[in-house]
Amino acid sequence: MEGALFASRWVQRPGHVTEDDGGLPAGFRAAATAAGLKPGGALDVGLLVCDAPEATSAARFTRSSVVAAPVTLMRERSRLHALRVVVANSGNANAATGRQGLDEAARVQGAAAMAAGVDIDRVAVASTGVIGVALDGRAIVTALARLRPALHAAGDADFVKSMMTTDAFEKRAALTVQLPSGRVRLTAQAKGAGMIEPAFATMLCFVQTDAELAPETADLLLGVCVKRSFDRISVDGQLSTNDTAILMCSGSSGVRVAPESEDELRFGEALDALLRTLALSIVRDGEGARRIGRVVVRGGQPAAVERAARAVANSALVKTALHGADPNWGRIAQAVGGALRDGAPLAIDISIEGIEVCAGGTAVRHDAGLLAEAATGREIDYEIGLPGEGAETEVFFSDLGHEYVTINAEYTT
Amino acid sequence: MEGALFASRWVQRPGHVTEDDGGLPAGFRAAATAAGLKPGGALDVGLLVCDAPEATSAARFTRSSVVAAPVTLMRERSRLHALRVVVANSGNANAATGRQGLDEAARVQGAAAMAAGVDIDRVAVASTGVIGVALDGRAIVTALARLRPALHAAGDADFVKSMMTTDAFEKRAALTVQLPSGRVRLTAQAKGAGMIEPAFATMLCFVQTDAELAPETADLLLGVCVKRSFDRISVDGQLSTNDTAILMCSGSSGVRVAPESEDELRFGEALDALLRTLALSIVRDGEGARRIGRVVVRGGQPAAVERAARAVANSALVKTALHGADPNWGRIAQAVGGALRDGAPLAIDISIEGIEVCAGGTAVRHDAGLLAEAATGREIDYEIGLPGEGAETEVFFSDLGHEYVTINAEYTT
Repeated sequence: MEGALFASRWVQRPGHVTEDDGGLPAGFRAAATAAGLKPGGALDVGLLVCDAPEATSAARFTRSSVVAAPVTLMRERSRLHALRVVVANSGNANAATGRQGLDEAARVQGAAAMAAGVDIDRVAVASTGVIGVALDGRAIVTALARLRPALHAAGDADFVKSMMTTDAFEKRAALTVQLPSGRVRLTAQAKGAGMIEPAFATMLCFVQTDAELAPETADLLLGVCVKRSFDRISVDGQLSTNDTAILMCSGSSGVRVAPESEDELRFGEALDALLRTLALSIVRDGEGARRIGRVVVRGGQPAAVERAARAVANSALVKTALHGADPNWGRIAQAVGGALRDGAPLAIDISIEGIEVCAGGTAVRHDAGLLAEAATGREIDYEIGLPGEGAETEVFFSDLGHEYVTINAEYTT
Repeated sequence: MEGALFASRWVQRPGHVTEDDGGLPAGFRAAATAAGLKPGGALDVGLLVCDAPEATSAARFTRSSVVAAPVTLMRERSRLHALRVVVANSGNANAATGRQGLDEAARVQGAAAMAAGVDIDRVAVASTGVIGVALDGRAIVTALARLRPALHAAGDADFVKSMMTTDAFEKRAALTVQLPSGRVRLTAQAKGAGMIEPAFATMLCFVQTDAELAPETADLLLGVCVKRSFDRISVDGQLSTNDTAILMCSGSSGVRVAPESEDELRFGEALDALLRTLALSIVRDGEGARRIGRVVVRGGQPAAVERAARAVANSALVKTALHGADPNWGRIAQAVGGALRDGAPLAIDISIEGIEVCAGGTAVRHDAGLLAEAATGREIDYEIGLPGEGAETEVFFSDLGHEYVTINAEYTT
């Protein structure tokens, strides 16, 4: 259930989209193996290949100024609109590893190009795991030789496993999308549970389709959908060094998604629902999370609305209250006030699960028993009104519980 | 030991300052009682009075835009440079309580003025406790009648107890300060353990001296010292609705601290050491804290240096690692990178307890055993170098452990 697609009331499956379990879209193959980067022989290196020479792609990366070697390599030396291969590893982030880390990432890129038989600048490299430890590129190169003959259309099942770190469940989707011009498929694999407050991308998400998209269309759609999904979640307010999201389009279905067409609209809706539901599954898997929240903030000033929403989503006091099923709205008022400093006293409105608790900055009489009951759900809705109108945003966030402390205080991750 | 003054290596006791235990300075009396705001008959209302008609004072309040009624009352209707009375309660923050909350605060102010026999606009009111619950002002008014005859010079011991909420220990100080012009005394009572990232003040700190200070001098010194103490700490990154810091000067010692004198310098040093050590004791009492950290950031851009220091101090990943004695510096690099977005890759330097672990953005070979040992201390020093020179800041912060989750998930505070 936890990993089920569209399990949340906050993301609806569009009518023209159905879940399937048919492996990767036409034109894609994948496989994974254990290279010894993770202990105990767990899968830790994955290879995903698009066999269509004319494949298009789009990519987004972390906005952090401390970036991992593979992200730097991608930005500087790859054709981000024509990617055909992804090689991903877990167990090591290859971040803060300097010149040597860049060399190792480049070696991995070269070996993956050889294994897949494509140009080196059409290979994407992604890493996740511990920061500041030298990556054993040789182990990955050796693994890639084993992966070449293992590539197959149902390889996404192993590929997603090979990316997992503290993830408690797999984040994988396979959808059939009925477009006006024909039927296409859309699949995705994501990972992430901690160090999650992506800005334009999240900790590794790969999306494939057999629809034909021009690079500009792929870029536009990925950009818009990432802003509405991974850009709107937080587990612990911590932007990662390695965030990467890539959409690859093989065109093998023969269905072309033309710019500004009904196909583009429908495809965009499907991609939007897909990325939002994956983003929510990352929040739901927020290390040790018991419940998740959505904070919606409305008001007149876009910057204030955004700051207030982030402040609530990242407040240790709000998150522990969410964990404890405590509808302690005073902490929400406090978090908003702390985020919007030096202003006149704020006439803030607050509702929890539709129950108004504060209006114009003052407590509102309400049914405390009803509110306490509502706070025990798995998904809690917080609505905040600031003065003015016209701006609105939302952030999805996980709670803060003992498991998060245990995971992050007792293991080096 | 936990509450001991000057227990930290980060704040030295100046040579002309000695600890004493002589109660309040000349000209001050205090007392506390139980008014039923806290359960179990615990002390919850305190009254502190300065008997000198010419007393001067200075005050700082929270910069939050969601402010408690007593803070609004202070700002709008009190002579902040001539305060002679403090009435403080715990068990209720009187925040988000609207017009009625302001009325209750005004009633308390009036009753305290009657009890102490001073003008109403020379009475400071302060509250701490749960947000959004109506304050029982009548209970406080009744309590004040009992407190009037109980006022005495050693009343600071009860006064500090009456302010405690989740505090695990008392934060109280009594110092004798040898100035060139004579000997004065300096005492303080503070409270705070959670909802702590003060901006210009912290959750209730009251300071008394029998030195004679002009209001401008008191204001200058309090302002400077608050910026170097309460403004530089964080337990959970949560700015409170009620932060209040007040310095009151009775002048009863006959020693005048003139502007720009050697007396002012020495008095300032004593006040600085006092507030810094109290601020550190709040961090040390950060709900459930096992160890505390100091992050020092140096670089060329003041705003970036400040953002980086706050990001490290408030990172859930850094704080859990601190709790677990894990010198996981990758999380420090990640936190700084996340705070300074959209820049070129950052050549960051990191040292932990003087051991260099990262230079120019790349891991540095170091003695891992030595580092692991150093990370088990009670106080951990993190030094971060960003490009450039000339700017430097520090933030003191507590760790994030199970106790914090337990305290904040299981009780409404």
